[in-house]
Amino acid sequence: MALTHFDGKGDAHMVDVSDKAVTARIATAVAWVKMQPETLRLITSGETKKGDVAGIARLAGIMGAKKTADLIPLCHPLPITKASVEITPDEDLPGLRIEATVKTSGQTGVEMEALTAASTAALTVYDMVKAADRGMEIGGLRVVLKDGGKSGRYEAQ
Amino acid sequence: MALTHFDGKGDAHMVDVSDKAVTARIATAVAWVKMQPETLRLITSGETKKGDVAGIARLAGIMGAKKTADLIPLCHPLPITKASVEITPDEDLPGLRIEATVKTSGQTGVEMEALTAASTAALTVYDMVKAADRGMEIGGLRVVLKDGGKSGRYEAQ
Amino acid sequence: MALTHFDGKGDAHMVDVSDKAVTARIATAVAWVKMQPETLRLITSGETKKGDVAGIARLAGIMGAKKTADLIPLCHPLPITKASVEITPDEDLPGLRIEATVKTSGQTGVEMEALTAASTAALTVYDMVKAADRGMEIGGLRVVLKDGGKSGRYEAQ
Amino acid sequence: MALTHFDGKGDAHMVDVSDKAVTARIATAVAWVKMQPETLRLITSGETKKGDVAGIARLAGIMGAKKTADLIPLCHPLPITKASVEITPDEDLPGLRIEATVKTSGQTGVEMEALTAASTAALTVYDMVKAADRGMEIGGLRVVLKDGGKSGRYEAQ
Amino acid sequence: MALTHFDGKGDAHMVDVSDKAVTARIATAVAWVKMQPETLRLITSGETKKGDVAGIARLAGIMGAKKTADLIPLCHPLPITKASVEITPDEDLPGLRIEATVKTSGQTGVEMEALTAASTAALTVYDMVKAADRGMEIGGLRVVLKDGGKSGRYEAQ
Amino acid sequence: MALTHFDGKGDAHMVDVSDKAVTARIATAVAWVKMQPETLRLITSGETKKGDVAGIARLAGIMGAKKTADLIPLCHPLPITKASVEITPDEDLPGLRIEATVKTSGQTGVEMEALTAASTAALTVYDMVKAADRGMEIGGLRVVLKDGGKSGRYEAQ
Repeated sequence: MALTHFDGKGDAHMVDVSDKAVTARIATAVAWVKMQPETLRLITSGETKKGDVAGIARLAGIMGAKKTADLIPLCHPLPITKASVEITPDEDLPGLRIEATVKTSGQTGVEMEALTAASTAALTVYDMVKAADRGMEIGGLRVVLKDGGKSGRYEAQ
Repeated sequence: MALTHFDGKGDAHMVDVSDKAVTARIATAVAWVKMQPETLRLITSGETKKGDVAGIARLAGIMGAKKTADLIPLCHPLPITKASVEITPDEDLPGLRIEATVKTSGQTGVEMEALTAASTAALTVYDMVKAADRGMEIGGLRVVLKDGGKSGRYEAQ
Repeated sequence: MALTHFDGKGDAHMVDVSDKAVTARIATAVAWVKMQPETLRLITSGETKKGDVAGIARLAGIMGAKKTADLIPLCHPLPITKASVEITPDEDLPGLRIEATVKTSGQTGVEMEALTAASTAALTVYDMVKAADRGMEIGGLRVVLKDGGKSGRYEAQ
Repeated sequence: MALTHFDGKGDAHMVDVSDKAVTARIATAVAWVKMQPETLRLITSGETKKGDVAGIARLAGIMGAKKTADLIPLCHPLPITKASVEITPDEDLPGLRIEATVKTSGQTGVEMEALTAASTAALTVYDMVKAADRGMEIGGLRVVLKDGGKSGRYEAQ
Repeated sequence: MALTHFDGKGDAHMVDVSDKAVTARIATAVAWVKMQPETLRLITSGETKKGDVAGIARLAGIMGAKKTADLIPLCHPLPITKASVEITPDEDLPGLRIEATVKTSGQTGVEMEALTAASTAALTVYDMVKAADRGMEIGGLRVVLKDGGKSGRYEAQ
Repeated sequence: MALTHFDGKGDAHMVDVSDKAVTARIATAVAWVKMQPETLRLITSGETKKGDVAGIARLAGIMGAKKTADLIPLCHPLPITKASVEITPDEDLPGLRIEATVKTSGQTGVEMEALTAASTAALTVYDMVKAADRGMEIGGLRVVLKDGGKSGRYEAQ
């Protein structure tokens, strides 16, 4: 198994996708932000305008998806055709669960866009709540669905 | 306890730091990328030019720190005076451990910059290795040190 | 009538255009900058290199069109195939009239790109002339033509 | 009266502010988006999650303020210390009224940042509501307050 | 011969490529960084981790290719499908030789992307080595290959 | 002599300038674009609106200076206080000569900003004239003046 971003000399490059077909592609990534139970209550209670922490984090995630090729050195710029982010409170965590889905019609997959969306949403939650809880942790960031393109459908167990 | 990003009406805003002192500030954040043992071997073995995956991810992390205010909606733009990222293989994980440190002389802390650096480095590792291992997971993203500024020194246990 | 940017739960998202046809699209937007008659004379007279205020504002407008998806949270990134901005002095206003036209071959319209181009050109005029006239006003920013795509041709009266 | 952005030969340049004092500066800009009465009702009624159109436009405005030096060719980059945007429905317009305030400790004023915030918020309203009402118009974009710096306090009548 | 970026009135605009065919396009640009022999030895010797100056400059060049439309006012945004940068020490120069190749499937050529990649790589070399040698010079920046599109193959002698 | 961007292990990092004094700094860089004599005549004759190629390239150079920290991986973001670009035709070259000057009050020098301004202006000239002359060459890009900061005044011979 070789790493596709490296050429014969071991130099990293942006993989040549010129000859790959333009196909409909989708990817979904997830992440969570773990926090103190009181912090979660602060977010879900009426003390902030209902939904605002989640609403702003969702928007930051969608905008983050559009910056993926700017952040990840060897990513191809892609014309995203859809981006959405869902944020759900989970009292057992306790914290927020994030799920980001991105679609494109392009020559390469969008899992980096989905991961960047989920990660940016999680960082934005941290930013808005950090004054109340510095010990929050972001984790579980991974791809759960990828489809379209030559390598076929992938679903994480 | 209130969330500082929200005003009396519950509207989110960029916190007014105009009257905070310009002080030397530092923050360190950590993260890890968990992968299959074979994937880690691919990164640390001679099959790629020694250090390249880690080297590119380190650089992406440093550049990511400079994009923090562009990514996180309510973050203040800050004149970063130092950014460094360390990446270490950990066979017990198995995977890579990331530690990012950012410094500034400014009116607000740099923990978001450190978190963004660590997160961008982790995403870049994922991007470069994903052809070999789609099931990688990013986690343990949190602040371990924050100093300078009114709220004093914070060290995670 | 529903707002297309909101899903069933009322959450905002980037509309899915994956199944829309790639068609030739065009949009034209207009705006004006109203100023003191002396300010307009300063711009159109020989005191600045002929055309410079308008020339710089035109260029800023064209570059602004390329930043639309970066500025407007739920806008799709689009491969712009043409952007032009015209700026004309109008002594009756008195001030400058701006008209921006943008074209693409894409899956969604370019009216936001045309509006952003016109608005950026207007702001740039303000910036360059503000030392002489702080009371300038920008207005009349609207779409006057939109064509291509499923919803057909739209021309403002 | 000369235009400060032009030198003796008539060439435009970024004004040298190296010798200006670092002082606390503030600016407020306003704008409005005029629409059909039904469109305003769509925004303010329960059909969208309460506050979302305004909430997203507010956030876009705050983020837009941070992009000012990137959009306006001769603007200096400034370390913004505060940015806030208020959006209020006005049934007499009918439409939404926008007010943006930006602060900095810097060597030059922030009226361009305030104008860019107001303008970006207005464009974002247009984007989110355009499927329902293409004829919306953005206007009344002007500076109403500017203070700090050598030229003293300015308040529009 | 006319300059295509200017219309009948002499105003600059982004050329309309709407009716040009989407074809496979490639361009290669070269540049060099001339330095003191000791400086070159510092780069190629074991005093820095082998390859790091060149490795970072290569990566900066690839990322620079993606920023072309952001830097060059009248450039069209293009979906780059490949970008690679090679850097070779040349003791006769003495210094480093840079060669950048960019590919796209688009409506316009990628020579500006290749030139921007080569130029950004050269500037990055300068940045990393400037503490040792301020007198370095960048030159020889030109297009050596351009193919695809209506104007046919171009190879510099 | 060691390279300051590399630490003891040979890893590249953004140099820590936290303890450097904030001083007034200036740098000037030069470059040229060599072209066919007819191409130069096209630029300087009345066939384009007088000054436009140079005017647009000057503006692109000024805007390029503001993007330096975004382009050059290990550059510190700096609050530029002045940027200007001069472009002069030189029939002996034949071509255009570019000189860019940047100032800041900061903790590190601005030679990278001056070099990036000159380089971006040169690339913009190439872009606007390339349809008439593909064989143009950019060269002579170097720092001719650097002052302010601990290392004192540097003037190239």
